[in-house]
Amino acid sequence: MKTVCVNASKQYEVKIGTGLLDTVGQEAAALLRGRRAVVVSDTNVAPRYLQRVLDSLHTAGFSAQSVVINAGEASKNTDTFVKLVNAFADAGLTRADAAFALGGGVVGDATGFAAACYLRGIDYIQIPTSLLAMTDSSVGGKTAVDLPSGKNLCGAFHQPSLVLCDPDTLSTLPAHFFADGMAEVIKYGVIRDAALFKTLCTKDIQTVLEDVVARCVQLKRDVVQADEFDHGVRQLLNFGHTMGHAIEQSSNFTISHGHAVAIGMVLASKAAGQAEIAEEIRVCCERYGLNTACPYDTQTLLPGCLHDKKTSGTVIQVVEPQKMGHCVTRAIPTEQLADWIMRGVEK
Amino acid sequence: MKTVCVNASKQYEVKIGTGLLDTVGQEAAALLRGRRAVVVSDTNVAPRYLQRVLDSLHTAGFSAQSVVINAGEASKNTDTFVKLVNAFADAGLTRADAAFALGGGVVGDATGFAAACYLRGIDYIQIPTSLLAMTDSSVGGKTAVDLPSGKNLCGAFHQPSLVLCDPDTLSTLPAHFFADGMAEVIKYGVIRDAALFKTLCTKDIQTVLEDVVARCVQLKRDVVQADEFDHGVRQLLNFGHTMGHAIEQSSNFTISHGHAVAIGMVLASKAAGQAEIAEEIRVCCERYGLNTACPYDTQTLLPGCLHDKKTSGTVIQVVEPQKMGHCVTRAIPTEQLADWIMRGVEK
Repeated sequence: MKTVCVNASKQYEVKIGTGLLDTVGQEAAALLRGRRAVVVSDTNVAPRYLQRVLDSLHTAGFSAQSVVINAGEASKNTDTFVKLVNAFADAGLTRADAAFALGGGVVGDATGFAAACYLRGIDYIQIPTSLLAMTDSSVGGKTAVDLPSGKNLCGAFHQPSLVLCDPDTLSTLPAHFFADGMAEVIKYGVIRDAALFKTLCTKDIQTVLEDVVARCVQLKRDVVQADEFDHGVRQLLNFGHTMGHAIEQSSNFTISHGHAVAIGMVLASKAAGQAEIAEEIRVCCERYGLNTACPYDTQTLLPGCLHDKKTSGTVIQVVEPQKMGHCVTRAIPTEQLADWIMRGVEK
Repeated sequence: MKTVCVNASKQYEVKIGTGLLDTVGQEAAALLRGRRAVVVSDTNVAPRYLQRVLDSLHTAGFSAQSVVINAGEASKNTDTFVKLVNAFADAGLTRADAAFALGGGVVGDATGFAAACYLRGIDYIQIPTSLLAMTDSSVGGKTAVDLPSGKNLCGAFHQPSLVLCDPDTLSTLPAHFFADGMAEVIKYGVIRDAALFKTLCTKDIQTVLEDVVARCVQLKRDVVQADEFDHGVRQLLNFGHTMGHAIEQSSNFTISHGHAVAIGMVLASKAAGQAEIAEEIRVCCERYGLNTACPYDTQTLLPGCLHDKKTSGTVIQVVEPQKMGHCVTRAIPTEQLADWIMRGVEK
């Protein structure tokens, strides 16, 4: 087992190891004063893992209830948020108790946001079961749901109290979802770690999975510690995301997050004039089944890009690679955004 | 004009003075980088003051839209929250822009909560038009909406960027709402300032209104600065509120907040064995049209008290007066709560 410590506004541990799913109860009992729990999961994950987590909580003395939401990005909305805060209230959770997020990014983000708001903030524990959630969304305390006009527009900064990653859960992950997570893993390589990028281009991922997850968590931790509230270096994590979000939206979310980010990374590299890096990213992405051809034109992508949270007044922050393993943020006036997108999408 | 500076996680000013309603635009322009605004108001306040505020914003160069919610506590719910965040998105607010809360506590709390969550936090400016909102809810950054199972159960800590109190708006406040605010004003006297309490028992309030509002804001400011996140001394502000919330709920909100708090203060003083203070509070409250007779028995109040946010595990924090101008918090086991309530409600 590997442990990564995060020192943000709250200090907490991310544990990565086989079998952690069965230790949820004892880990939580060591952390919390209360003994009430609500476990949130989704219709894909609950049938496989929910009972194990509930059993572990019961054995450790918790009174545990569960809420199962529909799997998929469409559930990441304000209806789910309202359902969850009411479920916490109905279960009688107090500020000494906690919510548990068992699933991928949607479950983690929605549960974290509900935990941030219920009683103005209770503890929550992340138990990510997807590669995307383990390496990205479960660490760092950014929680949110989507609004009809854009992704992640309604949320909170609220750090988890513990993150438990059991890589065994990745073995049952459909290939499509595994590829989704690989896009974010590749992103870490491009923005901060050329050696990681090389590993991803050359090694059999299954043989280095625990190490790769732990390395991504470390990289994310470093960025979060340097800039918890997203005013500077943390924006590097948005590499590929401004266009990625617009692509997800344009596809009405039939193109999933990671697949959209893969396309977005190639576009952003081309927009930055880094054709060679764009090509390296394309080759690496295809190794993991991520097609990076962009099906949309500038005019289609522009509204989604403009509505991005990184817009501030009349300026938008974009992230561009300077060399492999090193990205920078750059503020461009919103009226130049169309040109920037165009440089990305042109053949 | 009087100005009180608040040094919480954010530093901001509370200004109290006649005519401030017409300076909203220039005050906001001096604070904000963006020039988009959404003004939230309610069906009571909007007909009187909304156009003045919009005019002031337009004159200062803002593109300003408005959302008007139904007046009354029933609007302080998750539906309103969702409506507001979507209105902010539809207006294209960015992190450089702001929301404005023009109205009483319901408008302020719901707008503040929506501003806390939209893009994970944008600025908001409080323009309280009720005595309750000026002296209590608009300062300190506690925002929330109610859930079906209890008041203020879903919210955030999010400080405003500016609070503008125009006492002129109090002249159009119905007597019932003015009395509501007086309950909180009396509360400040009981918990922290015996001289203020004496003023309230003896002076004509209309002749000292600006001073009294400013004094309450100072007292609230002192408590908030000492304990922004409600772990200790800030809980003193809940004097009368544990039972007050239960009374509001038991009445299905036909008894309004201040009136319920007035009853709750008398009950809590009696529960603390301070019959004399209870009587002083009763007399002062009645001076302002606040009837302090409790229409409910222990069994009716118990569930609402138990569901209070001040419950943590098996313990609840109650606030009790020791002498006039000095209250303390005390943790009691939840199984003793019924006895505590009973001491309050018995004749």
